[in-house]
Amino acid sequence: MGKQTKRKHHKHKKYSLPVAGSSPGQIYIDENALKPVIKLYKYSADHYEVKELSSLNNVAQIVSDKNFTFWIEIKGYDSLAMFETLSADFNVNKLVLEDITRTYQRPKFEEYGSYDFAISRMLHFDESKDLDNVQVSFLLTDNTLFTLQESYEDCLEPIRARLKGGKGNIRIAGSSYLMYALMDIIVDTYFVILGAWGEDLDTIEDRLFDKPDKSVMFDTQIIKRNLIGIRRVVWPERDKLNDILRSDSPLITEQTKLYIKDAYDHCIQIIDVVESLKEISISNLDMYLSMISNRMNEIMKVLTIISSIFIPLTFIAGIYGMNFAIQDPVTGKLLPKNMPELYAAHGYLYTMIGMGIIAIAQIIYFWRKGWFK
Amino acid sequence: MGKQTKRKHHKHKKYSLPVAGSSPGQIYIDENALKPVIKLYKYSADHYEVKELSSLNNVAQIVSDKNFTFWIEIKGYDSLAMFETLSADFNVNKLVLEDITRTYQRPKFEEYGSYDFAISRMLHFDESKDLDNVQVSFLLTDNTLFTLQESYEDCLEPIRARLKGGKGNIRIAGSSYLMYALMDIIVDTYFVILGAWGEDLDTIEDRLFDKPDKSVMFDTQIIKRNLIGIRRVVWPERDKLNDILRSDSPLITEQTKLYIKDAYDHCIQIIDVVESLKEISISNLDMYLSMISNRMNEIMKVLTIISSIFIPLTFIAGIYGMNFAIQDPVTGKLLPKNMPELYAAHGYLYTMIGMGIIAIAQIIYFWRKGWFK
Amino acid sequence: MGKQTKRKHHKHKKYSLPVAGSSPGQIYIDENALKPVIKLYKYSADHYEVKELSSLNNVAQIVSDKNFTFWIEIKGYDSLAMFETLSADFNVNKLVLEDITRTYQRPKFEEYGSYDFAISRMLHFDESKDLDNVQVSFLLTDNTLFTLQESYEDCLEPIRARLKGGKGNIRIAGSSYLMYALMDIIVDTYFVILGAWGEDLDTIEDRLFDKPDKSVMFDTQIIKRNLIGIRRVVWPERDKLNDILRSDSPLITEQTKLYIKDAYDHCIQIIDVVESLKEISISNLDMYLSMISNRMNEIMKVLTIISSIFIPLTFIAGIYGMNFAIQDPVTGKLLPKNMPELYAAHGYLYTMIGMGIIAIAQIIYFWRKGWFK
Amino acid sequence: MGKQTKRKHHKHKKYSLPVAGSSPGQIYIDENALKPVIKLYKYSADHYEVKELSSLNNVAQIVSDKNFTFWIEIKGYDSLAMFETLSADFNVNKLVLEDITRTYQRPKFEEYGSYDFAISRMLHFDESKDLDNVQVSFLLTDNTLFTLQESYEDCLEPIRARLKGGKGNIRIAGSSYLMYALMDIIVDTYFVILGAWGEDLDTIEDRLFDKPDKSVMFDTQIIKRNLIGIRRVVWPERDKLNDILRSDSPLITEQTKLYIKDAYDHCIQIIDVVESLKEISISNLDMYLSMISNRMNEIMKVLTIISSIFIPLTFIAGIYGMNFAIQDPVTGKLLPKNMPELYAAHGYLYTMIGMGIIAIAQIIYFWRKGWFK
Amino acid sequence: MGKQTKRKHHKHKKYSLPVAGSSPGQIYIDENALKPVIKLYKYSADHYEVKELSSLNNVAQIVSDKNFTFWIEIKGYDSLAMFETLSADFNVNKLVLEDITRTYQRPKFEEYGSYDFAISRMLHFDESKDLDNVQVSFLLTDNTLFTLQESYEDCLEPIRARLKGGKGNIRIAGSSYLMYALMDIIVDTYFVILGAWGEDLDTIEDRLFDKPDKSVMFDTQIIKRNLIGIRRVVWPERDKLNDILRSDSPLITEQTKLYIKDAYDHCIQIIDVVESLKEISISNLDMYLSMISNRMNEIMKVLTIISSIFIPLTFIAGIYGMNFAIQDPVTGKLLPKNMPELYAAHGYLYTMIGMGIIAIAQIIYFWRKGWFK
Repeated sequence: MGKQTKRKHHKHKKYSLPVAGSSPGQIYIDENALKPVIKLYKYSADHYEVKELSSLNNVAQIVSDKNFTFWIEIKGYDSLAMFETLSADFNVNKLVLEDITRTYQRPKFEEYGSYDFAISRMLHFDESKDLDNVQVSFLLTDNTLFTLQESYEDCLEPIRARLKGGKGNIRIAGSSYLMYALMDIIVDTYFVILGAWGEDLDTIEDRLFDKPDKSVMFDTQIIKRNLIGIRRVVWPERDKLNDILRSDSPLITEQTKLYIKDAYDHCIQIIDVVESLKEISISNLDMYLSMISNRMNEIMKVLTIISSIFIPLTFIAGIYGMNFAIQDPVTGKLLPKNMPELYAAHGYLYTMIGMGIIAIAQIIYFWRKGWFK
Repeated sequence: MGKQTKRKHHKHKKYSLPVAGSSPGQIYIDENALKPVIKLYKYSADHYEVKELSSLNNVAQIVSDKNFTFWIEIKGYDSLAMFETLSADFNVNKLVLEDITRTYQRPKFEEYGSYDFAISRMLHFDESKDLDNVQVSFLLTDNTLFTLQESYEDCLEPIRARLKGGKGNIRIAGSSYLMYALMDIIVDTYFVILGAWGEDLDTIEDRLFDKPDKSVMFDTQIIKRNLIGIRRVVWPERDKLNDILRSDSPLITEQTKLYIKDAYDHCIQIIDVVESLKEISISNLDMYLSMISNRMNEIMKVLTIISSIFIPLTFIAGIYGMNFAIQDPVTGKLLPKNMPELYAAHGYLYTMIGMGIIAIAQIIYFWRKGWFK
Repeated sequence: MGKQTKRKHHKHKKYSLPVAGSSPGQIYIDENALKPVIKLYKYSADHYEVKELSSLNNVAQIVSDKNFTFWIEIKGYDSLAMFETLSADFNVNKLVLEDITRTYQRPKFEEYGSYDFAISRMLHFDESKDLDNVQVSFLLTDNTLFTLQESYEDCLEPIRARLKGGKGNIRIAGSSYLMYALMDIIVDTYFVILGAWGEDLDTIEDRLFDKPDKSVMFDTQIIKRNLIGIRRVVWPERDKLNDILRSDSPLITEQTKLYIKDAYDHCIQIIDVVESLKEISISNLDMYLSMISNRMNEIMKVLTIISSIFIPLTFIAGIYGMNFAIQDPVTGKLLPKNMPELYAAHGYLYTMIGMGIIAIAQIIYFWRKGWFK
Repeated sequence: MGKQTKRKHHKHKKYSLPVAGSSPGQIYIDENALKPVIKLYKYSADHYEVKELSSLNNVAQIVSDKNFTFWIEIKGYDSLAMFETLSADFNVNKLVLEDITRTYQRPKFEEYGSYDFAISRMLHFDESKDLDNVQVSFLLTDNTLFTLQESYEDCLEPIRARLKGGKGNIRIAGSSYLMYALMDIIVDTYFVILGAWGEDLDTIEDRLFDKPDKSVMFDTQIIKRNLIGIRRVVWPERDKLNDILRSDSPLITEQTKLYIKDAYDHCIQIIDVVESLKEISISNLDMYLSMISNRMNEIMKVLTIISSIFIPLTFIAGIYGMNFAIQDPVTGKLLPKNMPELYAAHGYLYTMIGMGIIAIAQIIYFWRKGWFK
Repeated sequence: MGKQTKRKHHKHKKYSLPVAGSSPGQIYIDENALKPVIKLYKYSADHYEVKELSSLNNVAQIVSDKNFTFWIEIKGYDSLAMFETLSADFNVNKLVLEDITRTYQRPKFEEYGSYDFAISRMLHFDESKDLDNVQVSFLLTDNTLFTLQESYEDCLEPIRARLKGGKGNIRIAGSSYLMYALMDIIVDTYFVILGAWGEDLDTIEDRLFDKPDKSVMFDTQIIKRNLIGIRRVVWPERDKLNDILRSDSPLITEQTKLYIKDAYDHCIQIIDVVESLKEISISNLDMYLSMISNRMNEIMKVLTIISSIFIPLTFIAGIYGMNFAIQDPVTGKLLPKNMPELYAAHGYLYTMIGMGIIAIAQIIYFWRKGWFK
């Protein structure tokens, strides 16, 4: 496993942290902000049209036609004027605009009388297989839904298809149902991501059983962290959905709430899956650690068996390699016979037999201790 | 322990994850869905009959006879028409039908006016000793209970026997009592499973004391994960039973609630057992880990004792194996007597005695340190 | 420490698990059930008598005398008739009878109008020093208390003595006070058990400091598990006492509640002690683990010091044991003087000095590193 | 670090555990109980006197003078009569007297109409630097405060000084303020103890960086346990102060409650400090453990480097120490020249160069692996 | 990494712990207290002036002009008179003054009728890059805000700039908005600190992958502790902001509460970041530990491979270095040919080939075991 993969989790989204001390309620336009692309979806049970707008200037007038439901989809934030139009024409609070443009917000739902404000976090794998974490902001009025996101890519295509196809509730159930549908697909996409990680964990586990090496640990740690990351999205998402369920906002229809309850159940199941994958990754790490210890034991056993058998034997060989003499080299006197074994008949044979017995005794000893298993 | 066993926990139920972006409230028919088998149980205090139905078409009419209680048991989901009949004739909400057919739901209880909807998760060992996790859905009306499950196998036979036998409350206490009886047997089956795992843990623990090896860890981890899995079923099950207890639904009789309270108590005891087995498995893993460390210590002690004794002795033998000469081989001059020990009388004997003393000193040293224990 | 002790915690109480699918409210008579022994205590401020009954047949009539308080003590469950009498004469719910005879219930308190039902779990060391965990069930009416337990042994003797002695409130404060007194002694017995375990932990800790070996871990794990076990008894016990405190049951006098509050405080202190002993046992295990690591370090230091000193020296000795010749054995030509050190005057002496310097340098090195401490 | 220190935490307060089965509400006089020393403080804004009483007999009469506030300080419990006077003259509940004399109670606050009852736990280092954990019981009536403690030593001197000095509120704010002042000093003393432990932890940490040895672990474990011990005092203390804050007792003035709020804040800060010290001690233990592992690595590196370099070299030396002959000793026939290296010119030199190359190659290899760092 | 860095976390703020037993409500002037520097900011929509005051004597009169909003900024506490003026002229409670001067308080908010009292903890890196933790106390009346801090340095300059610039709400929204603005900048500064730590963790993680050594652990532990420290500030900060949100104080305008809600959201995000960084640091420590174990494995593998190969070979060489003779040196008798291998033709060659085979067999064995990977 190459370094590239190991470091994948380094690719943090660079949060646009608040500049301490700046006025609250300030719209934040990042220097890398993208040019806004604005699409207007106008639909009713038997009508559907999309057009691209160059600005929000006439939108207030367009959406005053209560016979239709409108979805204003805004991507890219490089236009202060656009946000000022939102503030002027739709009376959107400055603090809300700050929350929209500072895209590190947690999922939340807030009521502001004439409109409701909500944030979802859209996670999806982008083209280069990295995980994007995009803030989608919702502004809901009686017949219009604004969605705002900083970047162009999204995972909302199926909703557009349903809107175009016109099947099911989507064209007739109003703007709050559209908001639900978008939130729901964002939540359901979490399942896709968790599914991918679950499969990664399965693969890692296979490697754990077959050939545990360092990469098992690194890869599991990356998934564990990703899970911690998604957890920080899912728990507030659950709270947000619950807030919508319990809200009295007239902009959310009772029928929509029934569906929101469904999304809420999905969210709880996602939390279940996240916790469960986290437990699995922790258990993988634990197993990895005890397999390292195990392997150390095995390595040490090899060393100990070989050393224990051969070091004493080598010592014996060393004994009989000593040069104790029986004649004083200077005086030429014969000394008492040092090391008589050397001069015994069959000394070598008996020595070899002795060594063999020692070796076999040790092998039996280690065998009994179960070291060969 | 073979690979087969190790990987048992890989056999996840393949969840039918929601396809992100599909319309909510869509009935999901899996491509491997089984042909539905529908059984109708019609009973009262003194009446009992079972028949197999080919469809739900006439059921609405059949169950309109309020003198009897009906149990419609549906297994296998490969019939869109069947679900549409449920929707048309019994006014069952589309979201409920989606929950029934997407069989990865958590246990829950919901009231829909004319009927109550509940989900249990039935865990049981199937014929090949694998653990199945089957969703059983309940639709309860005043005199009728529908149960729906995707697969054919179940653990409900004892209820059918009691129904047929007609002893106890079961024939006279109405449809809500029947729902209780089924839920109760599902909960009680958890005990059976936990009992099996408890025995496994006991066996593992015996191995831990006798011959701890890697399989101890693998097997314990599998049980630990299974416990984590069952926990994710039991906690929402407890919440579900509590929801039923606190509900005002007119479809649940007071008498049934008394019994539900009993099932709720069982559920709490199961949670107790699960937590306790989990503690035991964690404690087994901890013991395993410290036994590995212990064993490493023992291995190292053997190596160290043998090396410490023989390496210095070998060194001494090496000394006296050196070939320092006393005569210059070129000039033939006698040199000062290098290594006079070699030419001393009894040099060998004294050396051996010296070596013996060193060895004994070391043995005493290690003995005192308690390394031989 | 022998195997016997290690496995003590294997001696689980064999729970009489519910047979999945049996009718609820069924009295369960175990095949090893003991013959019932029934004692009747009849007392008032100035009266006290005990007699043994052969059955419960006349009890309903006996206890109708409201001038006295009665304690019916039942031990041993081998009589279906007995339970049926309870059901018939005292209107005891079938589910209650099931809870009494399935003796794996958690402590609880339930009101049934004409009587209250409560469960305590009595822990006590039996004659063979094993820990028994016995379910004691209470049925409380206005002037009568039934206690039921499966086995004969108990720890309630002091209450009988107080009843006989007649000192204090016990004879005049009614049946609910008697129930309190019994529950209180059961709770107080937990202190005795915890005291024994606390002393065990102290002993283990002494061994930990003196001679830590594997038994330290095993023994601590056993105590830790026992603590987990008692915890599962004490927490619901606390809830039970709290339920009694908050109950409106007319059968529990206000005065009794004052005393129950006292027992509740004891229970909280027991929880304190349990948690504290658990912390101590965990800390012992941690210390044990780090002492193993420490010991490994010490073992390795010995090995490394000895090896590092002697292996290089042995190498040098090996060098001078080589047989490089200065004369070609075939041609008899003199070769350039290979290994001139061997033929140098005092070569051996200088070699020995060199070796000594190497050894001393290494000893100083290791000393500086603090390896000799 | 000597054994004495290591075992400091063995010095448990011997709890006077309840004798299971004794009557509730029984006054418990320990056999080692101290003779009671009773002091009466009588004071008002401009009056202050202290006298020692031999018994409580006249106290009821003395304190009936409502112009003064009284503090009856009782130390030592060896007088059953004293407690009976409390019961008779001040109507103190028997259960309260049991709680006073069984000195293992948790901090608590209870209202009994004519008086309030509270318990604090006074921790202070006694003369021999051991930590004492003393129960101080408070009985509060409208103009009188009884404090009762088993032993003589305390940490309340500053309050007596303030009482004598007469500065601040203490003489004019009544008996509940006096109770507050005493509770507050007891709580503030916890800071002193935590400060001492904090410094100990700092010292330990210095040792951890300089010379980590086993004592680091033992000492940290002792502090960790002490922290666990104080935690069991501080949390119920917080609850107690909160109970006083929320109580409607007419005996506690509103002004006193304002001060109690202050003590409550201190208590929360103490909890903060306790948790923080606990985290530090856990982090110290973690660091100690990983330093052991690190050290093991270093030890093993030394061993491996030395062994890897010299074992192969010794082998080579061993090769050339072999005695393969070129002449059959029996027949005297010349054999093919075994080991021609031995008879080569400069064989020794080349061998030494070869060995040097092997050694240097290995050193470079280990250097590259970073083992010398 | 130098020692300096390692010990950075030793630089605890020396808390001015309460002296146990001192009167409550006592103003605490530290002996190192700084001379107070008092600045008066007087402003309205179209007016702005700052002047430095020598004392608080006339402030009560100055701030009686309700046409302006006033900010009295006090730094340095070495003036008892100043606090007494606060008490006399503004009726500030003695306990509040104690809380202001004992600068170890947790963030809190309290209402006292004519004024509100709040505490924030300002964390910022001072000139020497150390982290300062300064208590800032707020006293809020209808048109005046007092801020008090012990030291001179702060991070509030942007607010002064906004006040001077006069843009946004700050000059017109009254004293409670000013309090919000100051609290908000203090909270936002936490982001800056967390950002710095986050980058440190990234750097550490790079080192972990490249060259894990002890400093990785030390540095991570320091950050972990800092995180624990900031956590103890952020959680009560959150509670404080929530208390302000829920308070009925007339001094806090509804508009300000809207902004406080925003600061509250920031605070929750900070908690998120803190928890997330803590998880990362724990995961780093875990990885570090398992990398140590891994490295140990690698070290041991090198040792074992080298030893296992060469120790047996050395033994064989030792065998053929033995000096078994074939002639009795005393009698001169020929003995049976000991060690005939030595005299065999090509004995050396065969021996070398044998050794080679042994070595290659071992290398294959270790290769198969994956030890060379």
